[in-house]
Amino acid sequence: MAVGPDTLPELKPVEGFRIGVASAGIKKPGRRDVVLMELCEGASVAGVFTKNAFCAAPVTLSKKHLAAGPVRYLLVNTGNANAGTGEKGMADAIRCCDAVAAKTGVDREAVLPFSTGVIGEPLPVDKIVSALDAAKADLNEENWLNAAHGIMTTDTRAKAACEQFEYQGKTVTLTGISKGAGMIMPNMATMLGYVATDAAVEQSQLQQWLSEAADRSFNRITIDGDTSTNDSCILVATGRSGVQVAADNVELSELFVSALNRIMLTLAQAIVRDGEGATKFVEVRVEQAASVDEALQVAYTIAHSPLVKTALYASDPNWGRILACVGRAGVENLDLDALEIYLNDVCIVEKGGRAVSYTEEQGQKVMDGEEILIHVVLKRGDVRESVWTTDLSTEYVHINADYRS
Amino acid sequence: MAVGPDTLPELKPVEGFRIGVASAGIKKPGRRDVVLMELCEGASVAGVFTKNAFCAAPVTLSKKHLAAGPVRYLLVNTGNANAGTGEKGMADAIRCCDAVAAKTGVDREAVLPFSTGVIGEPLPVDKIVSALDAAKADLNEENWLNAAHGIMTTDTRAKAACEQFEYQGKTVTLTGISKGAGMIMPNMATMLGYVATDAAVEQSQLQQWLSEAADRSFNRITIDGDTSTNDSCILVATGRSGVQVAADNVELSELFVSALNRIMLTLAQAIVRDGEGATKFVEVRVEQAASVDEALQVAYTIAHSPLVKTALYASDPNWGRILACVGRAGVENLDLDALEIYLNDVCIVEKGGRAVSYTEEQGQKVMDGEEILIHVVLKRGDVRESVWTTDLSTEYVHINADYRS
Repeated sequence: MAVGPDTLPELKPVEGFRIGVASAGIKKPGRRDVVLMELCEGASVAGVFTKNAFCAAPVTLSKKHLAAGPVRYLLVNTGNANAGTGEKGMADAIRCCDAVAAKTGVDREAVLPFSTGVIGEPLPVDKIVSALDAAKADLNEENWLNAAHGIMTTDTRAKAACEQFEYQGKTVTLTGISKGAGMIMPNMATMLGYVATDAAVEQSQLQQWLSEAADRSFNRITIDGDTSTNDSCILVATGRSGVQVAADNVELSELFVSALNRIMLTLAQAIVRDGEGATKFVEVRVEQAASVDEALQVAYTIAHSPLVKTALYASDPNWGRILACVGRAGVENLDLDALEIYLNDVCIVEKGGRAVSYTEEQGQKVMDGEEILIHVVLKRGDVRESVWTTDLSTEYVHINADYRS
Repeated sequence: MAVGPDTLPELKPVEGFRIGVASAGIKKPGRRDVVLMELCEGASVAGVFTKNAFCAAPVTLSKKHLAAGPVRYLLVNTGNANAGTGEKGMADAIRCCDAVAAKTGVDREAVLPFSTGVIGEPLPVDKIVSALDAAKADLNEENWLNAAHGIMTTDTRAKAACEQFEYQGKTVTLTGISKGAGMIMPNMATMLGYVATDAAVEQSQLQQWLSEAADRSFNRITIDGDTSTNDSCILVATGRSGVQVAADNVELSELFVSALNRIMLTLAQAIVRDGEGATKFVEVRVEQAASVDEALQVAYTIAHSPLVKTALYASDPNWGRILACVGRAGVENLDLDALEIYLNDVCIVEKGGRAVSYTEEQGQKVMDGEEILIHVVLKRGDVRESVWTTDLSTEYVHINADYRS
């Protein structure tokens, strides 16, 4: 199950960005498991990738190809992560790129490969290659929703978002999709994200804005603290809207960056909402911290605590467990008597203990909701950071004890 | 359920250390929930305590009294942790010490209080005080097993150990008990340990040996990564064996320290074996590391990973999840092709991928056992460290979603 309504906005096409979806039968016959994306000539591409030292072969290859020069195709397969596959894995990823290159007349380096699914099994290259003709024949700009379905693995729902803004009579569109569920945590864990815009943005600027947006979205979500070997997020700017966005145009770049941040946050939060076995969607917000580091330290200690997460699952306003997390987060010289902790707007901890005004009924009312804010006020500075997470349910254990990911 | 046989060795009395157990009806009528321990005059006492900044009132008071001077009584209650209780909590802990002092004719500072149980509820001081006469009347040296039961909370079995060695025709005894389950992790998480010996050891030396032993035992176990507000481990040396242990007697001090390390490790591992919902007892051993820090970094990343822990629960030899943990543990310049990972003696990962010789049957056979060694060889140096942990079961979630701890 997932948290919140399963509705998607209309996904506007992005001119210059076509998508084809096909079925290679990698895990299940008939399942859409291969997605090919085609970028128009002249498109800029930026990417952020997993920081896991054991990054998968396709991640290594995508980074290399992205650095090498113009990208024209993104190839995604589900069902197999091509991770932990050694030299053969790299050869297999290259074979996939070569096959796309041969069928489309571009160089191998113009193809970025992405794989998600089981780790350590050989990539079924022949199956993937045999689906390329169908994926190519399917290429069209209206295919975002199919693509959102085509990149799903243990996801229970498709994830997509769309933003538009007007500038001097022209419309700029940003459309994106993501997948995740399980092994989600900062540094781009087991998740894929693809966002395209018809704005024109120079490559290094695009990379900077993507990195900043990812730090505030995909790198602020956590389900179980694990980081995958394959996570990647790609941002493509086709330029076809005719609107050129550059940092020296402050008004326009603010419009663009805020739309980018919104779409990235929506895509990242959609992954949390669909976290494995999730029944709650939880923001952990740490305010009045002395630094970003200490704010995140406290936020992640709470967000990763199995005891807090099981209490959330039980809708139990167990403020003692939250307080214990703040205490062990490693913040130097924490003033226990000054800090405050809230559930939504209900103060649960002040002066080093349970808030005098607090009643169990108030806490219970907050915890009975599906969307919960755990709000810690450290009273040490003016930094504020949020991370988003889920509860820990028996369903989570069932899924991960049964699924060979 | 717990892992391994539920058997205890004979718990030899320690001369000069008497224990009384009583029922104060704190959570359930009739349950043994108050334990009073009496130290003979002249006994040395050492203690290690939780590093959680929100340490409970009894921890703060125990540290203060321990520093102040000769300790004569330890008072333990279960059912209420007296944590997150602010100024009233401290006043309540003092009242308990005062009551023991009044009944026994010692100073308040000669009493160390310990509480474990629910956080944030006022300590039922009157109930505890009313049980002191019965506890005092029960004081005797043969009471270790009753004490092991008397300090249990969510524990499903009593935890105790005993070591003896001979030196120059005299027998030295070390006997100890522990409790834990849930919220177990380094830095003394929600666990209590009490070890007494009839050796004579000077206080500062006793403290050093206890701290070192705790670092290799209680601070190397983890069930869910949470640290409690109340953890304490106390070591008492009564001196009544007539054997004086000092560092300058190398032979004797080695005998003593190795017995101390063994009893502490047994008590700590017993807590893991009885971890909430545990079905597996797992050692994560990291060998050939460049430093203790990086060895522990890798070991804890594996031991805390919900994905590894659910795979252990499912008896799934999911080497990909272990490999992903090593990759994200943050070790700089890790040589992926050099390192090796074993399940017991089965090599599962080498040269950056699944070991060529590995078969699923081999892995399955290891995972089907109740006791599993995950063994990572980093090939970077000569440091070796182990941590001990459990799997993550649906039962863990049930317990923690139901129990207000």
